[in-house]
Amino acid sequence: MKLLFKNASILMEDWSVLKNGFLGIDGDTICYLGQERPQEDFDSEKDMSGKLLIPGLYNMHAHSPMSILRGIGSGLPLDKWLFDSIFPIEARMTPEDIAVGTRLNMMEMVASGTVSFTDMYDQTWVTLDEVDKAGMKANLCRPIQCFDPSETYEDNFRSKESIKLYHDINAMNNSRIKADFSIHGEYTNQPHIVAAYAEECNKLGGRVHLHLSETKKEHEECKQRHGKTPARFFYDLGTMELPVIAAHCVWVEDDDLVLLKEKNVTCVHNPTSNMKLGSGFMPSQKIKDAGIRLCIGTDGDASNNNQDLFEEMHLAAVLHKGYHLDPTMLEATDLLTMATVNGAEAQGRENCGKLKVGYKADVVAVDMDRPHMMPAHDVPSLLTYSAHGSDVVMTMVDGKILYENGVFLTMDWEKTKFELDACMKRLF
Amino acid sequence: MKLLFKNASILMEDWSVLKNGFLGIDGDTICYLGQERPQEDFDSEKDMSGKLLIPGLYNMHAHSPMSILRGIGSGLPLDKWLFDSIFPIEARMTPEDIAVGTRLNMMEMVASGTVSFTDMYDQTWVTLDEVDKAGMKANLCRPIQCFDPSETYEDNFRSKESIKLYHDINAMNNSRIKADFSIHGEYTNQPHIVAAYAEECNKLGGRVHLHLSETKKEHEECKQRHGKTPARFFYDLGTMELPVIAAHCVWVEDDDLVLLKEKNVTCVHNPTSNMKLGSGFMPSQKIKDAGIRLCIGTDGDASNNNQDLFEEMHLAAVLHKGYHLDPTMLEATDLLTMATVNGAEAQGRENCGKLKVGYKADVVAVDMDRPHMMPAHDVPSLLTYSAHGSDVVMTMVDGKILYENGVFLTMDWEKTKFELDACMKRLF
Repeated sequence: MKLLFKNASILMEDWSVLKNGFLGIDGDTICYLGQERPQEDFDSEKDMSGKLLIPGLYNMHAHSPMSILRGIGSGLPLDKWLFDSIFPIEARMTPEDIAVGTRLNMMEMVASGTVSFTDMYDQTWVTLDEVDKAGMKANLCRPIQCFDPSETYEDNFRSKESIKLYHDINAMNNSRIKADFSIHGEYTNQPHIVAAYAEECNKLGGRVHLHLSETKKEHEECKQRHGKTPARFFYDLGTMELPVIAAHCVWVEDDDLVLLKEKNVTCVHNPTSNMKLGSGFMPSQKIKDAGIRLCIGTDGDASNNNQDLFEEMHLAAVLHKGYHLDPTMLEATDLLTMATVNGAEAQGRENCGKLKVGYKADVVAVDMDRPHMMPAHDVPSLLTYSAHGSDVVMTMVDGKILYENGVFLTMDWEKTKFELDACMKRLF
Repeated sequence: MKLLFKNASILMEDWSVLKNGFLGIDGDTICYLGQERPQEDFDSEKDMSGKLLIPGLYNMHAHSPMSILRGIGSGLPLDKWLFDSIFPIEARMTPEDIAVGTRLNMMEMVASGTVSFTDMYDQTWVTLDEVDKAGMKANLCRPIQCFDPSETYEDNFRSKESIKLYHDINAMNNSRIKADFSIHGEYTNQPHIVAAYAEECNKLGGRVHLHLSETKKEHEECKQRHGKTPARFFYDLGTMELPVIAAHCVWVEDDDLVLLKEKNVTCVHNPTSNMKLGSGFMPSQKIKDAGIRLCIGTDGDASNNNQDLFEEMHLAAVLHKGYHLDPTMLEATDLLTMATVNGAEAQGRENCGKLKVGYKADVVAVDMDRPHMMPAHDVPSLLTYSAHGSDVVMTMVDGKILYENGVFLTMDWEKTKFELDACMKRLF
């Protein structure tokens, strides 16, 4: 099946815009991009007048089933919010809750231009099934936790589930879905469990997704407990031998950046969640200047409270300028890089994150025919400062359209609402 | 003409939600609000299933014609951006540019739930005409400026135009449009001009709209020039005898807050613009704690770069929490208060800013039937953290619908785009 987009504005990899261009798709791959109509035949054509085609966005830190907890515990600091408000509800969540939460979350994502996400949650086999059906890309993991110092690695059922998920996903042989390993955080684990898990993961190969220095409390308590920062804790326990995707990194110290750079760790900026919970915010410019790969994420809906990466780009773009009184910090193109190609790289995906011949057809159409998108003096600036996720009118993953003009093509909106109602009655 | 909204969720003045309610409108006024169907007859009914009715929003600091400069000079600090990039283009702007810029800006506003704005710009008679035709509410002013210390008040043509605008608007006897006085800022004026203008304005009565301590440079240079802060400068020159709407207030000092409180000044928070230009951000919680009225605004499109007050509420809500590491700062209901009833009060409008019988029918419908608006555990939190301006599906001002489901009913989208194209060719 070959599809040709015509009359499109196309965001190129150098962030320039090709006007009135053609973008051709053959199966799951971009086969043509140019000013001239291609010579070859296509099965169908789609008029993209007034639309800008951009590469799909990567949400690099999510907890997708948490959509059903949206708005719970507003105004509480992270530790109270997590331990007193969120954990007790999560303990009651059934596979039905996980399924509908994941689906609702993916609907938010595809409706706002996200094509792939790096997710961390429990009952991950349910999320896996929903992602498989929905057609999104995702890196999934089952995070390990251990609160009991006397527990042995052999008795830690989460580690077993985490490793099993890795094998299950690899056995599916679905290039859209990848298995990551995951350690929830330093403050929710014991060193001997982390070390044993790292040893097992390092033999298998892959990536590790974890929370790092999200709150000052967590960061300082780690130093009291272990005499070292969380980054050094993970480094010393062998968890950074594989590529690490470290969410938050709000309180990382200068010495930590040396370790993160050495081990090629990816840092994921989650500005709304960190600010909303009163955790602070990542020193993104410093991390970027240290040559460390920066990505962007939403975190879960319970602390954001949506999955709109355009909103995260906007906040990240203004936050550092306003705090450091320097309007040159984190330019619009830096944010777009974080949200596209850097995400694809960090997820271990080749030929993803750009609109380019030979790359996967992960294409998002943004409607420029709206008052707040005119005039178009500066397109990267428009995308970062003026646009919202709701300006997305089409989201395509691997050549398949998942969302178009308000309609979800692979997920059932009415069924999801019906199931959400049932979850709410059961949970609250 | 009497219209009844039925099956609506309605945001009440205590921020609770009345479900499956009725809201009746008679002419420009809310005549019924309740759980039961009203006894009286209505000319027409509108089904609002899945929609939340909220009071229309007040954008308390705008420069509406600047929409045509969206994205110009991105990455420059305020003084360079203003003097080197923006002012030279503004000097070439014709009445046609002002007209199309104002209209484009109002389209952004009504499409995102704003019913009224406090605007500051030149060639204000053009803006006045556009607002009159579009049906929005606005407080308009022509700001005075003077860069030449030898200029007399009699020779300052801006003061004359500013006072003339006041009389022209009052003569229109249109309750939607109000005249404000305006002093652009301390750094763009001379004390003797400000004093003489204040004396004239104080005799006439009204409100004064000005920029106050937006950048550190402006604030510190004022102290060097005049031996006092901008707030004290305006206080001493008699400009605070009328109610003042002071935009920005980023660098106000503790002593300034005493003056602002004494004179009942309204402070307008413009978080995106201030952060984007690297100016910093308003100490909003401190201003609120001092008992000073807080409102919210977008500033012009050239420094925002859109007019979405939901985005401003979101940013303001997370900014102070993240900076002060305190998730209890500026709650969702504080933001909604700033964006509705506080705006109406500061604009000098009676019976505006709430959904309540006897109040003006400035009603906005928000679509709750979208993935990111579910579940609805906490509606003020949903509006502040999860919603975008694009969730607005209807905006009504004084009982007249200006925008509904993507369609502008009092402004011509195709004509505006055509005219915008012509402006772009002329200006750039």
